[in-house]
Formats: sequence, structure tokens, C-alpha cells
Amino acid sequence: MGTSTRQASPFLSTFPGRYYYDPAIYAQEQECIFSRMWVYGGVANSLPKPGDYRVLQIASESVIVVRNKQGALQAFLNVCRHRGARLCSAASGHLNGSIQCHYHAWTYGLDGRLIGAPNVLNRPDFERALYGLHPVALEVWQGMIWLNLSNNPPSLREQLDDPRVHDFGSNGAIERYCIANLNVGKTMVYEVQANWKLIMENTLECYHCGPMHPELCALLPQYKTGLIDGNDGTEFADNVEAFTITGEASRPPLPGLLPEDHRRYAGYFGMPNVFLNLLSDHVAIDWLEPLGPASTRVTSEWLFDPDAMASPDFDPMDAVDILDLVNRQDWEVCELAQQGVTSKAFAQGGNYAPLEHHIRDFVDYILEKLES
Amino acid sequence: MGTSTRQASPFLSTFPGRYYYDPAIYAQEQECIFSRMWVYGGVANSLPKPGDYRVLQIASESVIVVRNKQGALQAFLNVCRHRGARLCSAASGHLNGSIQCHYHAWTYGLDGRLIGAPNVLNRPDFERALYGLHPVALEVWQGMIWLNLSNNPPSLREQLDDPRVHDFGSNGAIERYCIANLNVGKTMVYEVQANWKLIMENTLECYHCGPMHPELCALLPQYKTGLIDGNDGTEFADNVEAFTITGEASRPPLPGLLPEDHRRYAGYFGMPNVFLNLLSDHVAIDWLEPLGPASTRVTSEWLFDPDAMASPDFDPMDAVDILDLVNRQDWEVCELAQQGVTSKAFAQGGNYAPLEHHIRDFVDYILEKLES
Amino acid sequence: MGTSTRQASPFLSTFPGRYYYDPAIYAQEQECIFSRMWVYGGVANSLPKPGDYRVLQIASESVIVVRNKQGALQAFLNVCRHRGARLCSAASGHLNGSIQCHYHAWTYGLDGRLIGAPNVLNRPDFERALYGLHPVALEVWQGMIWLNLSNNPPSLREQLDDPRVHDFGSNGAIERYCIANLNVGKTMVYEVQANWKLIMENTLECYHCGPMHPELCALLPQYKTGLIDGNDGTEFADNVEAFTITGEASRPPLPGLLPEDHRRYAGYFGMPNVFLNLLSDHVAIDWLEPLGPASTRVTSEWLFDPDAMASPDFDPMDAVDILDLVNRQDWEVCELAQQGVTSKAFAQGGNYAPLEHHIRDFVDYILEKLES
Repeated sequence: MGTSTRQASPFLSTFPGRYYYDPAIYAQEQECIFSRMWVYGGVANSLPKPGDYRVLQIASESVIVVRNKQGALQAFLNVCRHRGARLCSAASGHLNGSIQCHYHAWTYGLDGRLIGAPNVLNRPDFERALYGLHPVALEVWQGMIWLNLSNNPPSLREQLDDPRVHDFGSNGAIERYCIANLNVGKTMVYEVQANWKLIMENTLECYHCGPMHPELCALLPQYKTGLIDGNDGTEFADNVEAFTITGEASRPPLPGLLPEDHRRYAGYFGMPNVFLNLLSDHVAIDWLEPLGPASTRVTSEWLFDPDAMASPDFDPMDAVDILDLVNRQDWEVCELAQQGVTSKAFAQGGNYAPLEHHIRDFVDYILEKLES
Repeated sequence: MGTSTRQASPFLSTFPGRYYYDPAIYAQEQECIFSRMWVYGGVANSLPKPGDYRVLQIASESVIVVRNKQGALQAFLNVCRHRGARLCSAASGHLNGSIQCHYHAWTYGLDGRLIGAPNVLNRPDFERALYGLHPVALEVWQGMIWLNLSNNPPSLREQLDDPRVHDFGSNGAIERYCIANLNVGKTMVYEVQANWKLIMENTLECYHCGPMHPELCALLPQYKTGLIDGNDGTEFADNVEAFTITGEASRPPLPGLLPEDHRRYAGYFGMPNVFLNLLSDHVAIDWLEPLGPASTRVTSEWLFDPDAMASPDFDPMDAVDILDLVNRQDWEVCELAQQGVTSKAFAQGGNYAPLEHHIRDFVDYILEKLES
Repeated sequence: MGTSTRQASPFLSTFPGRYYYDPAIYAQEQECIFSRMWVYGGVANSLPKPGDYRVLQIASESVIVVRNKQGALQAFLNVCRHRGARLCSAASGHLNGSIQCHYHAWTYGLDGRLIGAPNVLNRPDFERALYGLHPVALEVWQGMIWLNLSNNPPSLREQLDDPRVHDFGSNGAIERYCIANLNVGKTMVYEVQANWKLIMENTLECYHCGPMHPELCALLPQYKTGLIDGNDGTEFADNVEAFTITGEASRPPLPGLLPEDHRRYAGYFGMPNVFLNLLSDHVAIDWLEPLGPASTRVTSEWLFDPDAMASPDFDPMDAVDILDLVNRQDWEVCELAQQGVTSKAFAQGGNYAPLEHHIRDFVDYILEKLES
């Protein structure tokens, strides 16, 4: 936890105001954080078959994530090597064994190698190996895809094991949830008119839970007290069986959980852009993609056990509705916070109350990344 | 009146073209004029009761104007001292005795003092007096609210009594209209795609009245001649009783006027952003708020005597319709003028004809403010 | 053809990526190319009568092109000399002998001379000759209007006869089509989300014709082979009578053509912003107007012999439909290409295949203009 910014008052300061709106700082973040760190890129099980693909925007790059013929996931810049045309325009879909450019019919295998180029491929002076798609580093951890735009990135492990990242939520419990075995049962996409760091700060504290989230507090009563520092998780209320809009359980617990996990809400932060809600019968992933200094897309994915999903009675909405409600309450105040950051009253930033002090670690972590 | 720019021709020059579109000059105006001068901010009688509030945007600040429990108007930056969230989102409304932030329930009195902050307010190390809302200077003159974002502004009086401001219209007659006793009977809001100074220049001359305003000239025939230099006011046509769309009077004269005021149109400019139309039976206020280099919101407020408004026959529309018609004619040509300012033909500015020479004082006044 | 950029591989490189999206380079193009070169500005016969006018946007200028009382075309900046107001707001129309400003009724003849200015024109100290509309250089060549914003431009002839321009298509054949005798039978306007140079590059090669334009290749089979270097024109397929959607002829050949022209498609590039499709029974003009770094308006005009148009059976759509189809196919891939130019994979540009090598001349020509 940073110390240089501690004040005589009970407060630590947030980022200075300009960090939440200045396009130059946003560009620096895109370069130093989103173009150099591993970033979350969706659930691996969402692309089950060879040829299944998804297109992601990371910093200023469009990236194709595709399952190749050997069944492994690979990622490439979505740019033809000939004249630069966008290859895949849809957000997701299925490729029949190759990726073909619409413009001049240059064609690439699912592994990125150039396999077709009319009038060019067979020329003796053409070294086709130099014209494959540009690869993007990809690793899968706990069923989650991570991508890195760097040419020679360190391992994902190194980023996840950074002790400062561990301060944002231990990854000890996460393995018991076996996310790699779960499937997505529902996806919702929100466009929030707030800087992505305001959304992270919102997620990192529960000082706001009492005023903002009465329904959440009915399930998780400790959040109402405002006495929880951090978001390490908490017990259900006595009359609550599951983290659903009714508080009733409609699915069996996930296999592999300990009894202590059954009546508990736990969180996990994956820096820089993902937050996991770990529940007894599902996992909900909140995935942040900055769209601009004051705009962020949040994609929420609700994952369930495939056996539960195979049931004719399966209905994800009791799990979806409670978090969707909490999400919308949060986006509203994040947008109100965004509206204040340009004021001269916020030029030096705002104040974290004592219950929010741990967020300063997030601020210091980001500031260090921006200076690197 | 500036002399250095006089030419051998019968013309004086306008601002150079870039003053009407360059974002850097716009930013300088926001800083040197709208953030340092007193600016008009609405009719005091529009907020009659304690708790009544209005939110204004001045330069880059959102400002709450509220009537406090003692019945006085106060103004504050619309920014919570904790994490900076916008406090009041509606354009106007009523507060029940306090201003509460939606995010973490920090609460301020109508006088801006912090009176609630969960888990923080009662800590011994917390000096609550340091965390009240940031005040904005406010004065009321002739029933009109004026606001100043400076920390230690000079008095409003000093700005109003500036002899250069007096050139834009004497404030001698205005006191007879007793605006503090009038109430708003109608409000119209226009968004004009023109720089705010083009709108001021339009208001400052009547050379355009003949070609543009036949209905206005029918009421005020001297405006048709193009021989009036300035906008000091003029007499009604012989067959005209009142400044209405029909020329007929439907309300008694305002109390306090002299007989010479009864058949006369008079104007008053309040630099930098308000113009008053002073008529026998009403006052119409045109209030300019720059939205960008090429966009200005104009709010027109028609004020009447409360006794007239209490009549079951009261209908403001005969007064509204004539000025609304003139307004729309003016906005059309202001927008045409805006379209020309980026041309190389206008790089050095355009020309004020002799009847418009007095506008050069406005130009010089603004240029001096920008250099200060 | 430039040599310095040749590579050991069979490829030459395109512009670096930033030339297709950087606003600074776009501004430089507007200054060095569109504000200094002659640019195409429509068909002269579209303004047949004195008073007929058209308003064009060239670089940052709005320009009035009008036929004067003597029957000649003239062009002026669309800016009043008094206060700068836009004079003509419609895209085209008819003026009854003069151009009058809406604002203060200043009035100009169709030759640009100031002929009215209330209260000013007759003052002894007013030199009206100094206050005419700013002229824009205009020449008509082969029935096409060309405009030049420079104060003292070289002749249009000099630009057309530049030997590097001749590389983009000889103007030998064009005279036989007698465009000055044709009339516009159909106009279509497209807004393409791509840099104007990507559209020029698309027009300059037929390597994409096989994959993208099956209907075109059915009419012009050599285009399917991908073996035509450049766009010098090609013969119809054996069963094709005319360049129409059906391949059947519905109009007689244009008078003046040689027999060798009757079954042939020929192209002509007029740098920087026009491309002509020369056919046996019509001429189709594609006119590019950059709207921004990533946006271009393309206006397609189909011209026919007036005698053919006078026929009660005249229907231009068989000619229109084939080129409209090809146009839409081209705009789609131009937009895909635009989406790739900001990628780091395209920072140094893409590659021209051997069949596209001649386009590098266009790149070098533009780069030279930008450095001048």
C-alpha cells in the first residue's frame, strides 16, 4: 500500500481528476497497460469447435481469437498482410478451415499461415512464410482466455503472481470453482459512460453498498454495515440459500466446492480488466473494455455447470437478475462520478474514506504501470 | 471605442475569423471571461422557496443555485467532496432541506456544510468544516442572479459600472421596470449553431432589421430605416399600442414606468451574456450560454407583473410570439454567418458598416478581457 | 515509376498507415493538393442557363459555380464581403440575376460585382470595386468543370499534360467521346467510410476484380484473369453488346467514336479526384470529394447523348445498374481496408502485388505534391 500519499486526515486521495478524462493519459494507459499486460479476453469454452472465432478490440488493435484444427486457441491481428483489409468483420462466428480476405482473396489457415494469394503464392521470389498473419500471444488459465499484444511478453503466471495483484483478491479459492468446466448461460453487455478506473474503484469497495444496493445487502448483510474493508467475500444472510434474486437455490452447488463455499460470496480481481463473482452454483464474470476516456464496455458472463444447463428446467435468470440489478445501480453512480472529474474541485482528486483505503493500492499499481 | 483598427474605408473590422471557431480561443474565453467575470444566471424569483434549486453550466463547472433555509440564494460546485460525484442531475427541482450524494450518502445542508458522512463524520480525526461544498460567488441585482467562479471576485457593481459596459446600453431606465417584482410567464430555449459573439454582434446592431425583420419593423418603424446606430431603443409606430404580435395591448403597463416608457422599446446589455428587452407590459431576457466554439444555447424568459399573471385571462403568447419570431430570424442569419468564418475570405475578419461601428467597442472589450 | 521503394520481394509498399488516417496528413493534403491543384467540379452542361448555380465544398471552402449573363461559368467563394455570411445554402438552384445576402441584403451580380449595399453603396468614401465576391479560378475541359483555389494557378492544361498524370490513363481517346455534347441522365451519391486515396488505389488496379466483381468480369473477361496491369481498358466478352447489366445494347453508339471503341471499356483518370468510364453508349464519371481522413463522398454521373435521352424509350438504368453494383462492391472493400490502416501491422504500410505495381506511381505523385 502506497504511503507517500497518506495525509494527516483520515483520507487518502484518488487519482488526480485528469486521470479520469484526459485523452493523453488514456492513450498512455492503452500503450502501457492494455498493449503490454495480459488482458482478459473471454471464456475459452465459448469457442468449442475448430473454426469458432471471436473478434476483440484491444487498445487500437482488432484481434481474431480462433480455435485451430488441432483444437488449440490462437490469436492474430485482424489485418490482411497484402493491403491491410479487415479480415473478420463479425463479432464472432465460424470459419470453415481458413480465413479469406474479401479484397483480393488472400487466404490464411486457422494457424495464421498464408495458404492462398492469386498470382503471387507460387512465384519463386515470394517467401510465403514472411506473410502469415501477425500472431498475438494467448494463454488460457482457469478456462479464461488472456491475450497480450507485446512481441515477447512475460508469462501470464508472472502477472497473476505479482504480490500487488494478490492484494486485490487471492486466487486460492478460484481453483475450486473449476471455471474451465463451466459454460456461459447468459451474457449481458453494458456501455457505461465512465472511465474504466472509476468502475474498478467502484468494484473495489463496498462503502457504497448500503446506500446503493439494498437488494444486495438483503442477501449479504455484512455489506450493509459498511464495515468490510475490501471485497474478500462475505456470508449469506441466515434465510438466504443462494445468490439469486429470490435468495432461493434453484441449482445444485458446483462440484468441487468445499462446504465453506456453499453459503458464501467470494470475489476475484484479475488485473487489469476482469472481476469474478464466485458463487455456490455459478460464476459471474465482469469484463471491462475501455472504449474511450469516459466510456467503458462491461460484458457480464454468467457461467454454470453443464449438467445443470442440460436440465429441461434450467433458467439462469434468478442468478442474472440480482447481479444485473446491482450492475445497473453501480453504472449509475460511476456515471455520476465521471461527471465530476473535470471540475476544478476535483483537480487534485477526491478522497478515499478509511473503508476505501485499500483502493489506493490500485491507484499506485496503475501509476507504476504508466511510468514503466 | 477602439481607434487602432480604423481604416481609410468606411469600415471597421470584426474579430479575425478564427475568433469565431478556434477551440483554443474558445477555451481562453471560457477561462478569461466566463470563469472570471460575473455571468447572468437566471431570474431570482424562479426559485421562490427554500430548497428550490437550479443547475447551471458555467465554463466547465456545473453549479447548483439553491435558496437556503434563511431564504437567501447560494451557489455551490455540483461536486461531492468525497469521490467527486455529481450531486444534482436534474436541471431544476426542490431539495428537502439537504443535498445528498447518491454514491455513499454524504449529505450537505442547503448552506453547503457537510452534515452526514457514514462511518466518517464522527471520527475524532475528521475536520468536517474542511469538507463543505465549494461555494460559488452569487449576487442578485434587479431580480437577476449573477454568478462568479473566481475565488475572490470584485463586486458585481464594479463590473456593471465599467464605463465601457455602459456603452452597450445605460442601466438608468432598467430600474423603473422593477424586474425584481416580476415573474417568469414563459421560457423558450434555442440551440443556435453559431459562436456566442456572433449572436451578441447580431443583437448589437439593427442594420439587419430592415431585410430580416419585417414584422419587427412594422412595430418599430425606425428600425426599418437602418439609420439607428446602436440599440438604445425606439418608439412604437403610431398605430401600435404594445410590443405584441398584433400590436394591441392586452395587459396594463408595468407599475413604476414613466409615461415616456409606455410606447417605447428599450434594450439593456449585461456583459457578457445577457440582453434585456424592456417593454411597457413585460420584460424579455435573452440569456446566452456558450456550448462550444460554434454552438450557443439561448434561453428567452418573458417576465410579467404578478397581478397581470393572476388574471384568469392572462396569456403571454402575444408578447412571446413577436420576439420568438424575431429570434428565429436572427438565429438563421447567425448560423449563416458562422458558416463563413472558416473561409480564407474571412481570415482577417469581415467589415462593420458605419451603422455598426459601435460593435467594435464590443470587440475591443472582449479582446482586452482575453489579454488580461 | 518510383524506384527507391522497390524491395527484394515481389512487392512494393503502399503509403505508410498513417497517410490513411492521420488528421495532420489529411490537412496537408487539403492544403497542398485540394487547395492548389485543379480539381474536378462537375459537368458543365448541368448548369445550362444564366443564373443556374451549384455549391461545392473544396478543402475548407464553399464555392459557388454559376453561369453568368453572358453564358460563361464563373466561380466565387460563397462568403459575403460584409460580415461573412454564407450566401447560397442550397446545393444547387437558380438565381434571378443576382446573389443577395440574407443578413443585410448586400447584393452581387452573377459576375461577382457588388451591386447593392443599403446605406453604404453610394457613400463617396466607399470603393465598391474592392468588395466584389472573391473569384475562384475555373476552366472547362471536355465539358468538365475544373476549379482551382490558388490565387494565380497555372493553366489546367499544364496539370493535365504532366507526364506522370498521363501514366494514369492517356487522354487521347477521351476527345472522341465528346463529353461536352453529353448530358447527365442519372446521378448517384455514395458516402464511403474510407480515405480518398484508398478509393483511388482501388480504382487503379483490377487484381481485386476476380474475387470482388463477378458481374463485371462476365462483361469484361480479361479482368477475371488478374493479368491486366493498370486500367487501360479492355474488350467486351464475345456475347456482350454493351456495358449494361444485361450485356445488351439499348442505345446507339455515341457519335464520333471509332469502330474500335464500340466494344471496349476504357478508363481515364483525372488527378486528383475524378475517374471516367468511357463506354460505347455512355460515359460514367466517378467524382471523389474527401470529407475527412476516413470519409469520402463519391458522386457518380452517367452521361448520354441528348438525342438518345430525347427518345420516349430512354431508360438509363441498364447502364447505371452495372456500375452501381461494382461501386458498392468496391466501397465495401475500401471500408474494410480503412479499418486495417491504424493497426501496428500496417504502420509501414501494406504491399502492392506485382499486378498493382503501377499504383506506386500514384503514391509517389501524391508524396511529391505533399512535399511541395
